[in-house]
Amino acid sequence: MSLNTFGHLFRVTTWGESHGPALGATVDGCPPGVPVDEAGLQHWLDRRRPGQSKHTTQRKEPDAVRILSGVFEGQTTGTPVQLMIENTDQRSRDYGEIARTFRPGHADITYHLKYGLRDYRGGGRSSARETAARVAAGGLARAALAALAPGLEIKGYMTRMGEMEIDRARFDWDAIEGNDFWMPDPQALPEWETYLQSIRKAQNSVGAEIEVVARGAPPGLGAPVYGKLDTDLAAAMMSINAVKGVEIGEGMAAAGLTGTENADEIVMGAQGPEYTTNHAGGVLGGISTGQDIVVRFAVKPTSSILTPRRSITTDGTATEVVTKGRHDPCVGIRAVPVGEAMMACVILDHLLLHRGQVGDGPQGRIG
Amino acid sequence: MSLNTFGHLFRVTTWGESHGPALGATVDGCPPGVPVDEAGLQHWLDRRRPGQSKHTTQRKEPDAVRILSGVFEGQTTGTPVQLMIENTDQRSRDYGEIARTFRPGHADITYHLKYGLRDYRGGGRSSARETAARVAAGGLARAALAALAPGLEIKGYMTRMGEMEIDRARFDWDAIEGNDFWMPDPQALPEWETYLQSIRKAQNSVGAEIEVVARGAPPGLGAPVYGKLDTDLAAAMMSINAVKGVEIGEGMAAAGLTGTENADEIVMGAQGPEYTTNHAGGVLGGISTGQDIVVRFAVKPTSSILTPRRSITTDGTATEVVTKGRHDPCVGIRAVPVGEAMMACVILDHLLLHRGQVGDGPQGRIG
Amino acid sequence: MSLNTFGHLFRVTTWGESHGPALGATVDGCPPGVPVDEAGLQHWLDRRRPGQSKHTTQRKEPDAVRILSGVFEGQTTGTPVQLMIENTDQRSRDYGEIARTFRPGHADITYHLKYGLRDYRGGGRSSARETAARVAAGGLARAALAALAPGLEIKGYMTRMGEMEIDRARFDWDAIEGNDFWMPDPQALPEWETYLQSIRKAQNSVGAEIEVVARGAPPGLGAPVYGKLDTDLAAAMMSINAVKGVEIGEGMAAAGLTGTENADEIVMGAQGPEYTTNHAGGVLGGISTGQDIVVRFAVKPTSSILTPRRSITTDGTATEVVTKGRHDPCVGIRAVPVGEAMMACVILDHLLLHRGQVGDGPQGRIG
Amino acid sequence: MSLNTFGHLFRVTTWGESHGPALGATVDGCPPGVPVDEAGLQHWLDRRRPGQSKHTTQRKEPDAVRILSGVFEGQTTGTPVQLMIENTDQRSRDYGEIARTFRPGHADITYHLKYGLRDYRGGGRSSARETAARVAAGGLARAALAALAPGLEIKGYMTRMGEMEIDRARFDWDAIEGNDFWMPDPQALPEWETYLQSIRKAQNSVGAEIEVVARGAPPGLGAPVYGKLDTDLAAAMMSINAVKGVEIGEGMAAAGLTGTENADEIVMGAQGPEYTTNHAGGVLGGISTGQDIVVRFAVKPTSSILTPRRSITTDGTATEVVTKGRHDPCVGIRAVPVGEAMMACVILDHLLLHRGQVGDGPQGRIG
Repeated sequence: MSLNTFGHLFRVTTWGESHGPALGATVDGCPPGVPVDEAGLQHWLDRRRPGQSKHTTQRKEPDAVRILSGVFEGQTTGTPVQLMIENTDQRSRDYGEIARTFRPGHADITYHLKYGLRDYRGGGRSSARETAARVAAGGLARAALAALAPGLEIKGYMTRMGEMEIDRARFDWDAIEGNDFWMPDPQALPEWETYLQSIRKAQNSVGAEIEVVARGAPPGLGAPVYGKLDTDLAAAMMSINAVKGVEIGEGMAAAGLTGTENADEIVMGAQGPEYTTNHAGGVLGGISTGQDIVVRFAVKPTSSILTPRRSITTDGTATEVVTKGRHDPCVGIRAVPVGEAMMACVILDHLLLHRGQVGDGPQGRIG
Repeated sequence: MSLNTFGHLFRVTTWGESHGPALGATVDGCPPGVPVDEAGLQHWLDRRRPGQSKHTTQRKEPDAVRILSGVFEGQTTGTPVQLMIENTDQRSRDYGEIARTFRPGHADITYHLKYGLRDYRGGGRSSARETAARVAAGGLARAALAALAPGLEIKGYMTRMGEMEIDRARFDWDAIEGNDFWMPDPQALPEWETYLQSIRKAQNSVGAEIEVVARGAPPGLGAPVYGKLDTDLAAAMMSINAVKGVEIGEGMAAAGLTGTENADEIVMGAQGPEYTTNHAGGVLGGISTGQDIVVRFAVKPTSSILTPRRSITTDGTATEVVTKGRHDPCVGIRAVPVGEAMMACVILDHLLLHRGQVGDGPQGRIG
Repeated sequence: MSLNTFGHLFRVTTWGESHGPALGATVDGCPPGVPVDEAGLQHWLDRRRPGQSKHTTQRKEPDAVRILSGVFEGQTTGTPVQLMIENTDQRSRDYGEIARTFRPGHADITYHLKYGLRDYRGGGRSSARETAARVAAGGLARAALAALAPGLEIKGYMTRMGEMEIDRARFDWDAIEGNDFWMPDPQALPEWETYLQSIRKAQNSVGAEIEVVARGAPPGLGAPVYGKLDTDLAAAMMSINAVKGVEIGEGMAAAGLTGTENADEIVMGAQGPEYTTNHAGGVLGGISTGQDIVVRFAVKPTSSILTPRRSITTDGTATEVVTKGRHDPCVGIRAVPVGEAMMACVILDHLLLHRGQVGDGPQGRIG
Repeated sequence: MSLNTFGHLFRVTTWGESHGPALGATVDGCPPGVPVDEAGLQHWLDRRRPGQSKHTTQRKEPDAVRILSGVFEGQTTGTPVQLMIENTDQRSRDYGEIARTFRPGHADITYHLKYGLRDYRGGGRSSARETAARVAAGGLARAALAALAPGLEIKGYMTRMGEMEIDRARFDWDAIEGNDFWMPDPQALPEWETYLQSIRKAQNSVGAEIEVVARGAPPGLGAPVYGKLDTDLAAAMMSINAVKGVEIGEGMAAAGLTGTENADEIVMGAQGPEYTTNHAGGVLGGISTGQDIVVRFAVKPTSSILTPRRSITTDGTATEVVTKGRHDPCVGIRAVPVGEAMMACVILDHLLLHRGQVGDGPQGRIG
């Protein structure tokens, strides 16, 4: 990852600030001949879009994506695809206070210290709006994956929100799309809604844990030692705004297990090797096994809350910050489609990398 | 990260297999004029070296590092530094069974599937021996950091080993170096030793959690959006063998917090801004704040255990695997100096990146 | 260089096709605090713009550049700068014949073979219009260089056009800006004009040789062995459309010289080392000496001519191609500002690289 | 190209100084399953090796290459291949004068200025000995190409040496291997030998022009706009020591041609498209056509001559430099196998890149 670019062969460079004229993604290295159009990408953007439900910010951005290059007569040409989203809801306002004050828990102070200046309007480059560009690029990656890995399915969902946790015994893969929380435990839904309302009323916010699964990815994706699939997934998820932890399979809990508990035994199935469990999260030695690839990440609660917090101004004066405006009490909800997009980009990138170095498909046979 | 290379400007490429003639690190982009010699690097390698204590593998490798290039009259010249460690303890043995069998929880099967062949001797490229090269490179990074970030201190330690966890109320920074576990809670030491003996006797292994702290790093390191300091740290740690989770600051626990609990308030101190807490782990918006940079990672228990596990052979036949030989019951112990090395490399890399794009030191002033 | 990106730290990714909605440059890694606005960049674009003189294509594109990101209140912020140029002069026409025919000497056939499809409108991605994005990025690089290398001057000019060559005895640095050919030998101007008219009348085109000089660059830019300044300059120039050769200093003529003729002797001057000659073109061992950096490149004559040439169609049928439309008889003229832009980007990139690895300015002293 | 690394997927990092313990190449990204051994690589190194004929330096280095990693049971494993060449002929000598003096035309002064120190023994990193590592890596690339591009043939030869030029009318592809000059015009051989003896007797040196041809490369290699095949070839050749110019096809002479003269007409042949001429040198729009890929480069005469030249010392004092010792009167001779090695690496790299992004082979059909 190189400042604002990620990916080896499928390279995504995002650009743009929250309140500038536009933001977008410059995608280089996409295979040619992928059928794609603006409506197809818009489908994914609409899932991330604010103002969709009562649980997310009421900032109304159509987030309409335009394809400016790299697509001709409905197919990618192999040249860079420019995906642009214009910022239309730039309410004129007085930024004087924000310009002079550092919001606690925000990038305001670090941007100021590093660069000596910052675009303070709406968080500028550090705004979660940047993730719209990722979702657009992820939509393109999904279109390419449809041809390259036909059985692949990528799905993200919330597993925790503050005090609420899903009951994995009730896990329902098909229920995820049907609710505002992307939650696989629909029985718990009313409780989650009530909880989030209480957080909002308390002028507070809350963190979340998201799990993203890639089902049906072929074995052999990834590479030793620094180009590992899990390394790139960890980087991809940690690069999302507000993410503070990333886990593969057992994740941090692996520290508490013994070798007999943790090892996934291997048996021979009808189609090839099978595993009795998936503590590994589908990755061994940095390379996919063919099992579900399971990534989990934690999103911190947004610091943009109505409860006053102590801070300082650019001249070092103590102050109190209350962040008014349109903010999600749980930004983690909208991180679900972003995590999916990053998974799609990483899987595609590693499919291309594998094909480049090794050739089509796994090279080893078993049985 | 590009297959076997990590870093933007301070670029480390490791090479070599567990039982080949040698392994090492090719380090490109080191600043010139850094005083360094083999003895100085050996200091760090000796900390990681097996056979040091009763808790780690008894494979006796001197792990002697040789500097083959890039250093002249005791100083780096700015050209690539080749750090080579010869493999001396290559016991001749019959590898027939290992060649035909996939150890559960190991990269055996994924390397086989991906590449169609694998160096099965001692794990080949997927062996933890590769981390010796990282530690050598980390030693060089520390030497460079001594000049570039004089007050910087990097320290790793174990915070968990299976059922054992440190009591943070008894945290003692200065006790870490004095015990076999790099453990900051010396009072718990006897209990940890007894526990690990019981794991070993049970022919089992156990996972671990390691925390690495960089104290005294300047603010301003890192960059939006994919070149974030925490993104690169997550990638660096996840690339270490057997690591399954990475956390910055609060890490996964951030999912359970509210905004009022999590935000680090800012106050003006004598030297500049200070923070009342460090939930962020020293990184905001991907850029260092000047606080302690806190990274945590989990190492899974090694699958190389004497307890039989089910697996298959290359021709798909069911078999049982018992991994004899010299293996650590807790590989996490030796991951401590590796985590430190990765921290050193990442911090140096971002210091050079910052200097390249922005110039020396933070550009913004407060107060 | 990575498909559509060049540069190490100052990274320019260009995107867009000749007849798509827009094209542009995504510039990552620009130092913060650089004063820049659209008018300042437009100055450079206007020099490259078609329709400026009777010698260049009459396609009338305003080539107006818009800054979509990375600039706030007149200064760069250190985040990606998106420079977009909308394509306004997309005459509707019948592309049927062009779609089915490969123009000789064009990328039509190789794009078709490689990708299986191509955007045939006006050359698509292979059009010289792509260079407008380079000129915009080069304008940004120049703005950054104004602060980082105050005395630096970058100037390009034609040294040859078909049978016409400049007389170096009459070389006039200050005359370059004053004529349509960027020609440093104004006395030859009438002859060049007559010659080009005859080429045009003959429904033909002609090649050109362009020299670009960077005067006042500090010593120490570049790096062994693959990050050499001259390596990057050669790549930068060879990446420009229609360029077939690149020379540094003596260039290809060095093959004909002896060691006594070629070596630049060193003497001590008032300000430091001086060189009696500059056969090296300002680069020794890949690193700048502080002398003029001299690069020369050859642009082939465009194949878009009115004289019929034999070719084939996509179904393999023999045909004849006559390229009607608005084409320059000497595309080399408009390559001058493009070469300057590439020089600016490479010099800035190496200044940042040097500062990153080594620190500000040369580290060695003489005398 | 990134300081000491070149290549996108087949990445070669060379390391080592002329008079250090060893030098070598770390090759990452090689396809697995490539049959390779030390003897096979040695074949190519022996062609470059000094002391082979009366025309090259009498420094006697066996230049024996060792494979330290990435090869198992005679095949590459897909992990990094470390190729090491130990420096055995390190004559002990007094370097005092060389340490204090800058040789004109050498990198001595620029390394000193840039880094503040340099390994002055035998030129250190800037020595032509570095090219031995390229030739080793090129041997590995050739082994991989044998499987991936079966009909491919890569051959380099001299076309000029000072006043001597080959007569292309007598060009004999099969005669190249049979003489000390890699010269395709054997009739001119006696004259060349006499000329080079006169240069040597005059205590002088002379430049050379080398042409490298890849015959039988598939169409479709390369990519717009900065990952062009010719861009990467130009960079590869310009990165070789002492190279001052690079040409593709017509090269610099394209500046003197008209469009009717330069365009390669296309006709339909039995196997697919054919071209009546090859002015383009096998590359259109940065992508290979399937014709011979033709690269030419000029090597300057070495500045290491016995004729005294004016220079200065590190303290700025005027001095005269006479370079005694073992030096080639025409270093260009030994640049032939180096140019071939670079061609092999670039072709392989682009084959892998193409396979990664687009899939196996050209995607478009004609006829």
